[in-house]
Amino acid sequence: MEHLTIEANGASFHVARTGEGRPLLLLHGWPEFWLSWEPVMTRLADRYTLIAPDLRGFGDSAKPAGPFGPADHAADMLALLDALGVARVGVIGHDVGGAAMQPLARTAPERLAGLLFFDFVYPGIGPRMAAPDRLNEIWYQSFNQMEMAPGLVGATRDSCRTFIAHFLRHWAHRKEAFDDVIEAFTDNFLKPGNLAGGFAHYRATHAARIRMMKGEAPLLPANTVPTCLRWPEHDPLFPYDWTDRLGASFSDLDLALFPGVGHFPHREDPDRAAAEIAAFFQRVGWR
Amino acid sequence: MEHLTIEANGASFHVARTGEGRPLLLLHGWPEFWLSWEPVMTRLADRYTLIAPDLRGFGDSAKPAGPFGPADHAADMLALLDALGVARVGVIGHDVGGAAMQPLARTAPERLAGLLFFDFVYPGIGPRMAAPDRLNEIWYQSFNQMEMAPGLVGATRDSCRTFIAHFLRHWAHRKEAFDDVIEAFTDNFLKPGNLAGGFAHYRATHAARIRMMKGEAPLLPANTVPTCLRWPEHDPLFPYDWTDRLGASFSDLDLALFPGVGHFPHREDPDRAAAEIAAFFQRVGWR
Repeated sequence: MEHLTIEANGASFHVARTGEGRPLLLLHGWPEFWLSWEPVMTRLADRYTLIAPDLRGFGDSAKPAGPFGPADHAADMLALLDALGVARVGVIGHDVGGAAMQPLARTAPERLAGLLFFDFVYPGIGPRMAAPDRLNEIWYQSFNQMEMAPGLVGATRDSCRTFIAHFLRHWAHRKEAFDDVIEAFTDNFLKPGNLAGGFAHYRATHAARIRMMKGEAPLLPANTVPTCLRWPEHDPLFPYDWTDRLGASFSDLDLALFPGVGHFPHREDPDRAAAEIAAFFQRVGWR
Repeated sequence: MEHLTIEANGASFHVARTGEGRPLLLLHGWPEFWLSWEPVMTRLADRYTLIAPDLRGFGDSAKPAGPFGPADHAADMLALLDALGVARVGVIGHDVGGAAMQPLARTAPERLAGLLFFDFVYPGIGPRMAAPDRLNEIWYQSFNQMEMAPGLVGATRDSCRTFIAHFLRHWAHRKEAFDDVIEAFTDNFLKPGNLAGGFAHYRATHAARIRMMKGEAPLLPANTVPTCLRWPEHDPLFPYDWTDRLGASFSDLDLALFPGVGHFPHREDPDRAAAEIAAFFQRVGWR
């Protein structure tokens, strides 16, 4: 695994890179960083060049001064590809990464060989996100915006581990998926600015999220980049039923269920995740 | 101020008592304890006997073994009145205390000279509680149910002060209302079991809260005890507009706005709070 420091879009990015072949860009979620992708990267390294940055705010990349949302991350990633000399790329992501992939695909479809998503927020989820039965799942989207959140979560190492591990376990179906890296995740989120850096996503997306929950999300033209969705069977945060309106957002869509996993297919079943990634990019001729 | 320890309903209660005259029972909210009422108690001590218990879970009263809701508190308070030899009483409360007053008044209306509420949850609030615009106000009702909550909030003295002070300031309109007691509140919530003891309310009320938000709160007969509502003008948690359906829950209702205060009229404007209490109980002949 190579570890690069790349200047792009006025900021410094940490990028983990390995393998040989066509490039694939892997975009992590919250509360994650590049390390989430390692099991998938090692499995694909004989066929692809795997590029896993820490998104701005996370890991060893620069920290934003304020709210930092999907369109901001998309601009970062285009600049990062330029800096790396990558003209065209396949993109894989979920959660915050999946949110960033949508403006990325609208801004520069010609640079994208294909999009492979696990679960993520898209406008068609709509008011279902805020149904009363769902409130005990989405409270963190509000808490993460509070001024007190970084101090409270970062008060002690135990506080940080407890909070991060809560989400990594609660959202997983295979509960042990992050057990081998939980100390590394704790170290990571305790680095100065990293808790606030991750929370910046929730501050940036609040207004759009409320519009979506009110059923007022703007109608955008569908993304035309070839898109593969492998939506987890057991994600408590994003039920599979919520895939029913993906067709309005993605015109070239291959949707199937990812069985036996929760929010983190790449960590819960990396063999299958890697196989799905390879199969999709083979199908779209990116090999 | 007398401090009593009273055994009632199988538990030990700390009760603060002062004054002379007809008894008034003062029921605090979350995150509060008896001390919230002190400014009102000293102002009424020449006319009434003021009885301010720590509800079970809070302050120096016993801690519940699990979820503990409004009907549980109501049973506690009836047993406590028995133990104190109080046959009939006027009751004042808000927030958790206001929630407990509703089953109390249904169970034993003959023992209640009158009810005076500030703001609180009642069924007529309904789905408005969970409107998307309100999510950043109600997240704590979910967070407080999480297994990690007591440990995270109680990790350090700073963590506890930060969390408790957040609500005492955010919900107040006169932001300095608790500045003189914030260390006493921090001491209080750091006592063993007190954070979990307060959170027990949110675990107990979750199912009913979700039913209310779905518009499925059961229709109960209206309380017939003479009732005075002095609803704060500026509570970010419970807007004054939400008083519009109180008539279905209280048949003998005197409703007016409490101007210039937020969630804590008793601490933000204790002169007016005491005057409203005295005026109402005079009107209903409890003097």
